Amino acid sequence: MTTISFARGVPAPECIPVELLADCARAVVERDGATVLSYGSPAGYEPLREWIAERHGVEPGRVLVTNGSLQGLVFLAKRFAGERVLLESPTYDRPLKILAAAGVEVVAVAMDEEGLELEGLEEALASGDKPAFLYTIPTFQNPSGRTLTSERRRRLVDLAREHDLLVLEDDPYGLVRFDGEAPPTLFELDGGEHVLYSSSFSKTIAPGLRVGYFVLPAGLERELEALAVSTYITPALLGQATVFEFLRRDSLEPNLERIRPLLAARRNAMLESLERELPDARWSRPEGGYFIWLELADGADTATLLARAGSAGVSFVPGTDFGGAPNTARLAFSFVSPDEIREGVRRLGSLVAEPVSV
Amino acid sequence: MTTISFARGVPAPECIPVELLADCARAVVERDGATVLSYGSPAGYEPLREWIAERHGVEPGRVLVTNGSLQGLVFLAKRFAGERVLLESPTYDRPLKILAAAGVEVVAVAMDEEGLELEGLEEALASGDKPAFLYTIPTFQNPSGRTLTSERRRRLVDLAREHDLLVLEDDPYGLVRFDGEAPPTLFELDGGEHVLYSSSFSKTIAPGLRVGYFVLPAGLERELEALAVSTYITPALLGQATVFEFLRRDSLEPNLERIRPLLAARRNAMLESLERELPDARWSRPEGGYFIWLELADGADTATLLARAGSAGVSFVPGTDFGGAPNTARLAFSFVSPDEIREGVRRLGSLVAEPVSV
Repeated sequence: MTTISFARGVPAPECIPVELLADCARAVVERDGATVLSYGSPAGYEPLREWIAERHGVEPGRVLVTNGSLQGLVFLAKRFAGERVLLESPTYDRPLKILAAAGVEVVAVAMDEEGLELEGLEEALASGDKPAFLYTIPTFQNPSGRTLTSERRRRLVDLAREHDLLVLEDDPYGLVRFDGEAPPTLFELDGGEHVLYSSSFSKTIAPGLRVGYFVLPAGLERELEALAVSTYITPALLGQATVFEFLRRDSLEPNLERIRPLLAARRNAMLESLERELPDARWSRPEGGYFIWLELADGADTATLLARAGSAGVSFVPGTDFGGAPNTARLAFSFVSPDEIREGVRRLGSLVAEPVSV
Repeated sequence: MTTISFARGVPAPECIPVELLADCARAVVERDGATVLSYGSPAGYEPLREWIAERHGVEPGRVLVTNGSLQGLVFLAKRFAGERVLLESPTYDRPLKILAAAGVEVVAVAMDEEGLELEGLEEALASGDKPAFLYTIPTFQNPSGRTLTSERRRRLVDLAREHDLLVLEDDPYGLVRFDGEAPPTLFELDGGEHVLYSSSFSKTIAPGLRVGYFVLPAGLERELEALAVSTYITPALLGQATVFEFLRRDSLEPNLERIRPLLAARRNAMLESLERELPDARWSRPEGGYFIWLELADGADTATLLARAGSAGVSFVPGTDFGGAPNTARLAFSFVSPDEIREGVRRLGSLVAEPVSV
């Protein structure tokens, strides 16, 4: 029995525009090979920096393009080593590990269905040293799939101003919305004074290109750029230039229109199957992104469940990996097909219903 | 007056096979796009790992391909943080900074015209804690252009065995040899037990691709791979796959044959010009690579000289940046044309001859 993976937060192969990217890669080396194939700016391929800058209404000097956005977070963690960083709980496990490994003190703030709980944030701000920043994924969060409501976004930006708090808005999923109206980003609400913004082209074009970016205050951009120089001189420009060629051809919006229904069909299959197979559980209902957050009945333990899930032919990531409760799990609907999702959730349902043999 | 740069240790634009790489990039995305454009092994593009492994006679699991070889050194520095590392003096400034920034204690061992002085190495081994490793660039060293003699190579490998010393042989320039016979690498002499090997395709194909690699003991490879995962999940695969396609087409050797005379002409122009313009100075005479090490008369100060070099229209890197003496400088002949080299060394000669106005 082949295992159906709800563990992999990656796009299904059919989401990746292979032919188009092959042509973009060729075209950009032919047109701008001398630049793409040489050492260049440590902050990334200049035309791409300019495109990103224009999109976010800032100067190109505020944009740092990195080998995937985690690499930028590694620089940021290094810059703020020894300081205190607030983050929502549960949260994406990789930043959690990167921050901790860099010697950053991480302080978790609870979330509910509407995203980060602002009362919890105020409490965290009132106690202890002033944090270096708050790390948040306000839209289709990894792992919970939750989205911070518009009202809370406004209040969060107000709080950031009041407390002179830096907020890092990590937004890789925002453009992968299937339905509903997009709330404004924190960056838009704030105007980029207290909010740092990061995103990537992993979910909108292709993850293997490893092109992430940060929009930062100019001074901080220069500090991280110095860390980039001493790590890799210049980031991998071929992927960045291929992304730029893709954007230059106005292929982003058509590609998003192509992948949204592919992902929506997967989310729908998962929501419908959960309804059918897991009557006693609760789960998030995201309007986009890759993930659904599953909450089993109190007392259930998804880590124990996972140990038996292998033989049942289904996999997922236990919520505790993200700082969540023992009865939670992250289900990624992005990678497998709708049919596999239906079958995988059926297997999950049997697993949950099955009495545990001791 | 345009400044002639002997500071940039990068290939001249004509050394980069732009058209061929454009086709390789397109071909590899078309052929293997699903792999290249997705997340993959944190250790790099598998077919490239296999190619490198075969070239060095090891298992693919011992090969770590990184976003440029400095990135791998960053992982290695992290792994050995707090320990002691020996390196030759002068040495490439970026590793020096990476090691120091990671909290590694660096201990310099002197070099002469024949490379690392082994008596100095023995002294360093006899005093203080056992070092984590020795970092060396035995062939066409950056910055000195010097090559460790065959006899010293054998003695160094013997010493490594005697003292159970790890040696990191950084060898980006070895294949860029214009004349003379190549001595065996330390890795070849040792069989890869005490010698770790690193290289890149920056000097043999193109630096902007950012493809470096390490050949390591399997256990150490796994440890660094774990650091790679938590830094960028997967390295930038498009450049790695493009390199593999280039290799698969047997384009490496023809490309080396094409660029060797381009670089040899530059080295020759520099050696001849130095003979003519700087009668009181000494310099290295490399049989390959990118650099010549200049030693002015005792009491000269290249940092002071550099301050006046801007208005004279020539630039270089003072030797002190690499831990060298104040009267030394690194001259890169790789980037500018032979005519520019002749004119640049003429300017340098006037500068050296000119009495300093106080």
